[in-house]
Amino acid sequence: VPSVLFVAFSNREDAVSLAQSLTTQLIERDVTATFALLDNNNMPYVTGDDLVVSLGGDGTFLRAARVAHQSNARVLGVDLGRVGFLLSTPVEAVVEEVLEALSSDKEEHRLALSVRTPNGDAFAFNEVVVERSTNGQMVRLQTYVDDLEYLLYTADGVLVATPTGSTGYNFSAGGPVVANELSVMVLTPIAPHFTIDRSVVLNGTSSVKLSSIDKTAVVLADGREICALQPNESVVIKQSSHPVRVVVSKNSALIDRLRKGLRDGHA
Amino acid sequence: VPSVLFVAFSNREDAVSLAQSLTTQLIERDVTATFALLDNNNMPYVTGDDLVVSLGGDGTFLRAARVAHQSNARVLGVDLGRVGFLLSTPVEAVVEEVLEALSSDKEEHRLALSVRTPNGDAFAFNEVVVERSTNGQMVRLQTYVDDLEYLLYTADGVLVATPTGSTGYNFSAGGPVVANELSVMVLTPIAPHFTIDRSVVLNGTSSVKLSSIDKTAVVLADGREICALQPNESVVIKQSSHPVRVVVSKNSALIDRLRKGLRDGHA
Amino acid sequence: VPSVLFVAFSNREDAVSLAQSLTTQLIERDVTATFALLDNNNMPYVTGDDLVVSLGGDGTFLRAARVAHQSNARVLGVDLGRVGFLLSTPVEAVVEEVLEALSSDKEEHRLALSVRTPNGDAFAFNEVVVERSTNGQMVRLQTYVDDLEYLLYTADGVLVATPTGSTGYNFSAGGPVVANELSVMVLTPIAPHFTIDRSVVLNGTSSVKLSSIDKTAVVLADGREICALQPNESVVIKQSSHPVRVVVSKNSALIDRLRKGLRDGHA
Amino acid sequence: VPSVLFVAFSNREDAVSLAQSLTTQLIERDVTATFALLDNNNMPYVTGDDLVVSLGGDGTFLRAARVAHQSNARVLGVDLGRVGFLLSTPVEAVVEEVLEALSSDKEEHRLALSVRTPNGDAFAFNEVVVERSTNGQMVRLQTYVDDLEYLLYTADGVLVATPTGSTGYNFSAGGPVVANELSVMVLTPIAPHFTIDRSVVLNGTSSVKLSSIDKTAVVLADGREICALQPNESVVIKQSSHPVRVVVSKNSALIDRLRKGLRDGHA
Repeated sequence: VPSVLFVAFSNREDAVSLAQSLTTQLIERDVTATFALLDNNNMPYVTGDDLVVSLGGDGTFLRAARVAHQSNARVLGVDLGRVGFLLSTPVEAVVEEVLEALSSDKEEHRLALSVRTPNGDAFAFNEVVVERSTNGQMVRLQTYVDDLEYLLYTADGVLVATPTGSTGYNFSAGGPVVANELSVMVLTPIAPHFTIDRSVVLNGTSSVKLSSIDKTAVVLADGREICALQPNESVVIKQSSHPVRVVVSKNSALIDRLRKGLRDGHA
Repeated sequence: VPSVLFVAFSNREDAVSLAQSLTTQLIERDVTATFALLDNNNMPYVTGDDLVVSLGGDGTFLRAARVAHQSNARVLGVDLGRVGFLLSTPVEAVVEEVLEALSSDKEEHRLALSVRTPNGDAFAFNEVVVERSTNGQMVRLQTYVDDLEYLLYTADGVLVATPTGSTGYNFSAGGPVVANELSVMVLTPIAPHFTIDRSVVLNGTSSVKLSSIDKTAVVLADGREICALQPNESVVIKQSSHPVRVVVSKNSALIDRLRKGLRDGHA
Repeated sequence: VPSVLFVAFSNREDAVSLAQSLTTQLIERDVTATFALLDNNNMPYVTGDDLVVSLGGDGTFLRAARVAHQSNARVLGVDLGRVGFLLSTPVEAVVEEVLEALSSDKEEHRLALSVRTPNGDAFAFNEVVVERSTNGQMVRLQTYVDDLEYLLYTADGVLVATPTGSTGYNFSAGGPVVANELSVMVLTPIAPHFTIDRSVVLNGTSSVKLSSIDKTAVVLADGREICALQPNESVVIKQSSHPVRVVVSKNSALIDRLRKGLRDGHA
Repeated sequence: VPSVLFVAFSNREDAVSLAQSLTTQLIERDVTATFALLDNNNMPYVTGDDLVVSLGGDGTFLRAARVAHQSNARVLGVDLGRVGFLLSTPVEAVVEEVLEALSSDKEEHRLALSVRTPNGDAFAFNEVVVERSTNGQMVRLQTYVDDLEYLLYTADGVLVATPTGSTGYNFSAGGPVVANELSVMVLTPIAPHFTIDRSVVLNGTSSVKLSSIDKTAVVLADGREICALQPNESVVIKQSSHPVRVVVSKNSALIDRLRKGLRDGHA
């Protein structure tokens, strides 16, 4: 029988208190449910049958997806909006949504990334970024696609985004939006100097190698710093061995979110 | 036994003369080969086993791909460069390339588009464009993806490109480059006014509808005008029922072509 | 004594009826006032002391500015919003605004353009565009700045905009917004192929020459077609001998309009 | 009588050795000449009549311009190309160029910036940047122009560039190129999220205020870090009290440099 793991960050008090009342209510309905703080690196044991439920915003969902991905469990995002905003959805509705997710087998398989660095491998669900380590200095990065030499960028950095991450940093850097179900990656330079700044949409089976030419760069996965990249060192970015299994909630069609987001200023 | 159809436009004399000598040489080697001018709308009968060989530039290849697609035959593009430039490859090399293509089963399946207009259906291998009919006037186009309302653009136009066409007009309009083997389409606005101008990469199974709001627009497929689009009329763009079967020649990797093209100013 | 000329297009019935009641009210206050339809090419005689008042939208204002510029008269734009929308400002307020403009000497000098074509000279207050004459075909345009060879663009076209026109077609094509009082011009390519698409902001004293290389292009000034441009023919764009004298109305700061426009989708 | 100050960075040995031989040759011709390392903060005394000569690349020129600006002296840039490349121009030609500059009064007045920070004022000749202090995190910056509220950007940062700096970081971030002699500033957001990313070209007499909303940002002038900017703190950017007096060398026309740079990948 699948069990539910609610996760949240401790600095979101509304999420923590919601998690507690959700846990109680699910247990009352004979569903095994636990709650864990994402600040804590020791996560409860999760199996591939379980459901991880993210309570928070985009950052919480990214972290929850990483937890779920490790066990190939499904992940459901409950968006609480910005800190300080009251959740518009009542608790009962969240309970219903979780129960529905448990009994349903609707899920979307979303491509995730694995980046091989000099420091080991890391997971990313939005994007891998290689960028300058020092404010005010550009880096020079040589890019390769499937071992073919592609462009040398002098830039703030270069990123490889998943479809899920296409509306994140990739979008800010000028990259296209990508339908979430596609098995592709997007290579986008960040503020490249005197080079055409167009993105390339690659097959999810491709690999991208980024080498720093003459300066120390940094590698980030979903916005967290993974390691430094010394001159002549490289990272290789590929799709992860398995996708993230996302339980799709109602009203989450990309086109709907985009239409609203492009009008209102966020997506 | 597969036969070969060479095609070219009559205004490229170098292509016509090359076609004639190629036809002769193939027949000498017991391969059935014919030559047809693309200016002529009556093409010789082609079966799905045959090979259509385009002699010319991008425009010739687009037209040849349309001929091949109708019979689900394979198409091979021999690039002659710009008019007036001597073919750098000797005739023998082209003969070898054609013979190799005949005996090989290497082919790439490339997504093609079908656009349903008030005037009937049309085929496109690069892109479908709906744009203003009058110089100096923008059109207002409402876009829909899979019947969901997306953005209303006031723009020179809106285009839907295939991966093959991603380096064409889509690129000029700011759209991303897309790996040719992907089964996706790219929706890109052309000079949109006060709207975020980012492209969306859609699943090849999606459909895009474009409606003109208050002015007459025109519909183009691969640069040729298909029909006018009156206010409140729509076109629907989907992938074609079958792909274009492209015989991939050596040195044609997208990443190679891009690296050279982005440095030299064309791809 | 300065007199007032109200101008409007006949297809805006609200503007025509407003013009009539404004004319009557000004005459009652002993101000000489007349009304003319802009559809009519024979405009009443205007002197440099007079005030031309545009009743309508952006298109009306552009046309009114042209009328005022010929006599070096001042121009005031009364924005009626889109056709069919009721004027939010009451008639009395417009009367007050006109009287205030008459008695005040507040005016902004805005750079206007003069384009020398094979067909004679033309005036533009927003922009001069040289673009493709046929849908679906790009043109190749060689650009020169102060007789120095600049880039060769393969593109939909190239435009030169005034600061006033910087939020118009220039903006759609990717160009920057320019403070209206500056004496500069902006050179912006429209959907250029495989060329860096950045705009150049030039000194108002510079001249820009655009030559069509191998196809017939068309020349437009403020959206109206001026003439065809044959291969090897050129146009030269310079600032006009004198600026447009615009009476600045309240609430018209560019930064205010931009902030609202960039949020709401037009400016 | 004007004297000459050669400046270079100590890590460019070719520049240092060139400086020494240039100093000797000028003294032989009865011109007072000295050499100073830019690494050293104690610069020799310079008067407004003197000429500062930069030996090195863009970074050296920026630093030399700052030295010259303090005394309102003129500055001449001798471009040595990249480290390790031999100077293509012979020493004699540099001597001639310096002597010509001394006897001539040809100079270009270039707008410089002054930024008022919580930490004091700083000078910038290329651009002032306010950006995120932590890799992987965006900042929210409220912008004001002449005390009018403009856009709130969620972005990597926001920059204000001079015309001289328009081909630098401003260009990478998507901003326009600006003719060097213009008295304007360019406001350009860096990788803004879901906001229109167009630049604004402002009058040189305008002031721009940037406030960090909720995170610590950093302020940079010409790529060097000036100070941190705490939440709710602001910087105000204006033109400097006097311009930089640049001695214009031959072959330095912006349009020429751009044409070459846009083709070759740097300017």
